[in-house]
Amino acid sequence: MNRREFLAGGAALGAAAACAQTCEDKTSGCPSMPHFVPPEKPAELNICLQLWVIPVGGDYNAKLDWLENNGFSAVEIPSGDWLFKETDKFMEAMKGRKLKISAACGGSDFSFADKARRDAEVARLMPMLDVLGKIGSAGLIVCPARRHPELPFEELRESFVGDTAKRLAQHAAECGTNIILEPLCRGETPFLKLVADAASMARDIGAGAKPMGDFWHMSKEETSFCGAFMSAGANLGHVHIASLRSRKIPGVDGDADNYVDGFRGLKAIGYRGAISFECGYPNKGKDANGKDVHLSEQERVDLVIKARDLIREQWAKA
Amino acid sequence: MNRREFLAGGAALGAAAACAQTCEDKTSGCPSMPHFVPPEKPAELNICLQLWVIPVGGDYNAKLDWLENNGFSAVEIPSGDWLFKETDKFMEAMKGRKLKISAACGGSDFSFADKARRDAEVARLMPMLDVLGKIGSAGLIVCPARRHPELPFEELRESFVGDTAKRLAQHAAECGTNIILEPLCRGETPFLKLVADAASMARDIGAGAKPMGDFWHMSKEETSFCGAFMSAGANLGHVHIASLRSRKIPGVDGDADNYVDGFRGLKAIGYRGAISFECGYPNKGKDANGKDVHLSEQERVDLVIKARDLIREQWAKA
Repeated sequence: MNRREFLAGGAALGAAAACAQTCEDKTSGCPSMPHFVPPEKPAELNICLQLWVIPVGGDYNAKLDWLENNGFSAVEIPSGDWLFKETDKFMEAMKGRKLKISAACGGSDFSFADKARRDAEVARLMPMLDVLGKIGSAGLIVCPARRHPELPFEELRESFVGDTAKRLAQHAAECGTNIILEPLCRGETPFLKLVADAASMARDIGAGAKPMGDFWHMSKEETSFCGAFMSAGANLGHVHIASLRSRKIPGVDGDADNYVDGFRGLKAIGYRGAISFECGYPNKGKDANGKDVHLSEQERVDLVIKARDLIREQWAKA
Repeated sequence: MNRREFLAGGAALGAAAACAQTCEDKTSGCPSMPHFVPPEKPAELNICLQLWVIPVGGDYNAKLDWLENNGFSAVEIPSGDWLFKETDKFMEAMKGRKLKISAACGGSDFSFADKARRDAEVARLMPMLDVLGKIGSAGLIVCPARRHPELPFEELRESFVGDTAKRLAQHAAECGTNIILEPLCRGETPFLKLVADAASMARDIGAGAKPMGDFWHMSKEETSFCGAFMSAGANLGHVHIASLRSRKIPGVDGDADNYVDGFRGLKAIGYRGAISFECGYPNKGKDANGKDVHLSEQERVDLVIKARDLIREQWAKA
């Protein structure tokens, strides 16, 4: 980092000195005044892998041993049926570990025109929040809509913020967990694409709702990694990371995999949650029959360790 | 150029090169990598009044004299018919002044379902861009949609970014000016409400399109003044300011009128455009017949001078 980059970073960090002030004047209709709330504690780097990204085979114990022995501090778990079928076995393997359980990742959609279908989606997710609360997870990742939402956007926002997400968030808060709103890139949704928008929805939903940011989606939609994370502020609930061209293990896309600007934002807001790999492994090319040649376990391990070191190095620079 | 300047320039070029590299990788569909580009020059405070907010009466000359003699460095003008009827007289009064012409403010709507009506809106605004280019204005403020857009949001974004705004922006760039996208609060539009979204649209539109931020709308919609301006970054084209509860002259809402966090964002991105009063004057209450009692000219002048000083003071703090 040279002097100008340092100064620029310093300017962003200077925001940490801003005063906290909320809008007490309800007559203005202002739900919250968007002043930066300086973090109470400094940011903390918690590198995390999704359970199915852990590069070694074996049972939960073997996988979690590898995570813990290699400098990772959290694990991201699946949602859906896995939560009801596997949680007991998984928590048995978690016993006595310092690893945190970050978010639970899976599909959701609240954009059906038919209210009964929206209600069914809420009912499907409610018991997941009970489990996530019990095991101390950061929250359940939800997307308001995937491609081609049936509801017009204005109605969708209203029903999501005022009804479906609100009911889930209230239950999540009672359970001691959250719903975590994930913006996606335009290839995956036309609706919620920006972290600032997720932050705005989470504010309108209230307690139990948090925005998240995924570097890969952000690289396609945001105009500023740092600005996006600052808009999420103290409410940021989770972060996904991947290589920024091919959505593989961070670092495989070379110079494109520069997260420093985003890490500056995370440091400015005092983020202490997980930065979790949501990505695939690259292949080694094709064999003579045109079939993908996969990496060996050792090659996967080497790649993840390199990614961990890259993230630590860029975090230190930020 | 000394070594430090060389290094600083190299950093900016490096960031631009990284961005260009990413943009060339069309397989990712990534229009631009959202890294912060450090400002080439430090930010500059340019306090501006809309022409109709200038507190004194008289002709253009009297109004512009007052502006210039009281520490304001720019003036915001109307768009619409005013541009064709008044520009010559106005520019006569501008002769020899250091005042800049910031944006031109007026209504627009591109959300008609009928393409012919959208085309008519483009045709109506095109000649305004010719005038604005000639007089060196920062640009024409446009809103993609007001209340109840006829087009579904996805189609509206596509037709705005890919057609109506794109044609206007291309013409604006040829004229040496811009279209400036203004996010509004939910009371005025359900569509474009966040600065990050305006920044994303401006990026997708390309040359001749810039996002702006209005503190008053932002206070209702954004979760971070600073994050929002950082998302606009070097492309930020204009800023509106008002008191944050009642949308009057800055300062009349007391402690609520805290712009420091936003000014930090403006400083971080090296903003050198105008911060322009878009607001009304408060009344002094009602008379015995229930009619509003307006401020005298001297009272208006005092209020604007106090607002100027408040902005200077908060800018210095930021």
